[in-house]
Amino acid sequence: MRMYDIIMKKRNGAELTEEEIQYFIEGYTKGEVPDYQVSALMMAIFFRKMTQRETLSLTMAMAHSGDMLDLSAIHGVKVDKHSTGGVGDKTSLALAPMVAACGIPVAKMSGRGLGHTGGTIDKLESFPGFSTALTRQRFIDNVNRIGIAIMGQTADLAPADKKLYALRDVTATVDNMSLIASSIMSKKLAAGADAIVLDVKTGSGAFMKAEADARALAEEMVQIGRNAGRKTYAVISDMDQPLGLAVGNALEVKEAVATLRGEGPEDFMELCLTLGSLMLIAGGKTDSAEEARQMLKGVIADGSALNRLAVFVEAQGGDRRAVYDTELLPKAEILHPILAPADGFIDHIICDEVGICSLLLGGGRETLHSGIDLSVGLVLCKKAGDAVRKGDILAVIHANDEKKAQEAQKRYLAACRITQAPPEKRPLIKAIID
Amino acid sequence: MRMYDIIMKKRNGAELTEEEIQYFIEGYTKGEVPDYQVSALMMAIFFRKMTQRETLSLTMAMAHSGDMLDLSAIHGVKVDKHSTGGVGDKTSLALAPMVAACGIPVAKMSGRGLGHTGGTIDKLESFPGFSTALTRQRFIDNVNRIGIAIMGQTADLAPADKKLYALRDVTATVDNMSLIASSIMSKKLAAGADAIVLDVKTGSGAFMKAEADARALAEEMVQIGRNAGRKTYAVISDMDQPLGLAVGNALEVKEAVATLRGEGPEDFMELCLTLGSLMLIAGGKTDSAEEARQMLKGVIADGSALNRLAVFVEAQGGDRRAVYDTELLPKAEILHPILAPADGFIDHIICDEVGICSLLLGGGRETLHSGIDLSVGLVLCKKAGDAVRKGDILAVIHANDEKKAQEAQKRYLAACRITQAPPEKRPLIKAIID
Repeated sequence: MRMYDIIMKKRNGAELTEEEIQYFIEGYTKGEVPDYQVSALMMAIFFRKMTQRETLSLTMAMAHSGDMLDLSAIHGVKVDKHSTGGVGDKTSLALAPMVAACGIPVAKMSGRGLGHTGGTIDKLESFPGFSTALTRQRFIDNVNRIGIAIMGQTADLAPADKKLYALRDVTATVDNMSLIASSIMSKKLAAGADAIVLDVKTGSGAFMKAEADARALAEEMVQIGRNAGRKTYAVISDMDQPLGLAVGNALEVKEAVATLRGEGPEDFMELCLTLGSLMLIAGGKTDSAEEARQMLKGVIADGSALNRLAVFVEAQGGDRRAVYDTELLPKAEILHPILAPADGFIDHIICDEVGICSLLLGGGRETLHSGIDLSVGLVLCKKAGDAVRKGDILAVIHANDEKKAQEAQKRYLAACRITQAPPEKRPLIKAIID
Repeated sequence: MRMYDIIMKKRNGAELTEEEIQYFIEGYTKGEVPDYQVSALMMAIFFRKMTQRETLSLTMAMAHSGDMLDLSAIHGVKVDKHSTGGVGDKTSLALAPMVAACGIPVAKMSGRGLGHTGGTIDKLESFPGFSTALTRQRFIDNVNRIGIAIMGQTADLAPADKKLYALRDVTATVDNMSLIASSIMSKKLAAGADAIVLDVKTGSGAFMKAEADARALAEEMVQIGRNAGRKTYAVISDMDQPLGLAVGNALEVKEAVATLRGEGPEDFMELCLTLGSLMLIAGGKTDSAEEARQMLKGVIADGSALNRLAVFVEAQGGDRRAVYDTELLPKAEILHPILAPADGFIDHIICDEVGICSLLLGGGRETLHSGIDLSVGLVLCKKAGDAVRKGDILAVIHANDEKKAQEAQKRYLAACRITQAPPEKRPLIKAIID
């Protein structure tokens, strides 16, 4: 088999076999197939697309290119959740304790934030002492004992995907649905869960700006998951403005805690209930979405979800008291309100820009090795559709540097458009693929 | 400017600017733009094609990526001839003295053969003592003094093309008309001639098997040449069987000499007259193709073309006596006739296979550094369309090794198809773009 022939075959529009795709991925992972042949193949795939069979083969080959986590020592049906990412997306923080309290084991590998999107590990480190550096044994023991463990991505999961993504990123071959879907799904399959619930975002703050693209991606991923023998569901949800009100690490933890107390923002709660229901169904707890929602509401009402968070935080070295008293979380020195410059309605808030405000304040990292200020960020007071009067507080900046606060305010005002007529309402949940 | 944006722009179907193409070629030549980005761009070009303007920009950028030969010290209009290559193509050997005898200066850079196609320099070295290792000053002086000089490709002509072609060769991005045309034309433009006559081959022994492709390539190259300000003409000629009768270095020299005596094979003579006429027209000697043919026939009839070859051979250290007595050229020890296995007509002779026979006999090099036996090869006695009787001599193998001769015979017989009905005649000259 020769890489040249594989490129030529795809270029000419034929379907690659499983063996050809395996040959290419194995050779690339080992460094035997050079970057320049792979980038030519990626561009040929961009133009020719991939069939469902090719996409599955690629996903499986990438999943098997490194460690395949074995979670069989964990009792019960392991359900993983994946979000395509966005601003203010603290879903895992609330959802993990909610579903764990309902009896679904949560064994999760998470990452850190980069650029204007946050990462679950950074957020969790807002709990003083919290660490995700667990041995694999401790990780499994914790899940069996208390129902939740989250560790950093120490395992060598889908290294072929990592290498391929880096190459696609510099050769203008990222935006192909099959390649995006197989990139995400290869890591999910390698991470060992029995079932997968996907949260595919759409809107100005999402990778998929257009709803039709988000839907196509969701369908492609669900198909891959099911073809690979995993129960897979997807939700298409809005990311045209930040999720909830808080953006920034400790601020998002605070909002997640409030949500576990039943006091969270409506949109965020709704997303947690929607995703959580699918997780309970995937985990075999019930067949009824309505029943699942009641179970989730129940663990919030009786405090067991909140308590589960505390147990989890403590099990990974964190200060559990901060769960019950969020004043113990990192706090910024400066609270700077942003005032509405005019009467009207919030037409929209450019979502990425809010993430960049938080980054400017020090709440995100520019490169993988830069430091991060967990205390800073923004809390929105008005969201799209809300009426405002001149001088109303649009959002509160939490900062540790007056100059940066000024800069963030300028940027926020430019991102927040006020109009005279109320905008059309965008539903939070666009579709569910179950 | 970023290479990423250039790839994306082309991928999305937009036209690249001259500046963008220059940036990419300069960066690639210097090693600043990596192979993997260039191969992605090449594949995008394969799918999106290039406009005439882009193709010209690419050609000019590659031509300027290394030395641009300055032939201004040579008096008169310098006309270069380029063939896309084939088996038995000894055209330069006869054409150079013919047009030189008509007053067109020939200042040519030539290459060596590789694989089953021969090279002009190897053929010329059949003259004992002949050398193409000239200084640039000597090269120019010779042209001014005797009208012809041929040197090896010592100059760094179009290094970007060399690098790009090697990359395309391993990434399945060779067969795009604009890329092929710009590859050839960038070297021609760098080689400094005022006018260019192109011989684009088509048929089983040519790079362009289909006549329509050959025509498209010829038109693209003529357009580039003219847009670059050089008079450019093209001939589309048949390479479905070897040109003339001789295949092999010294054997082809012998045939070229016979042609300069007016005793060459009809097809080869016709091609020389056709290409030569265009060269005389391009060089401003006449406007009339008929008059040009008469001039060329004249220098053959009066012996001046043959004498010009002798003067040229001597000027580059070769034995001029071999021009008048070809028995002095290298000679193989074994003459092995291949006999017709049946009565009928020669339907066709797979052209590449005849080249491979010569290669097998030792007449070509497998790699750039292997040695070569100048004496071996084949002389065809029957060509496509000829009637044969069982036992007639189809061709004579010239060999220095009996085993290799047997091998070549086997291969030749497999390549030469005899049928009962005479085949349709393929014209030698398919079209002229003037």
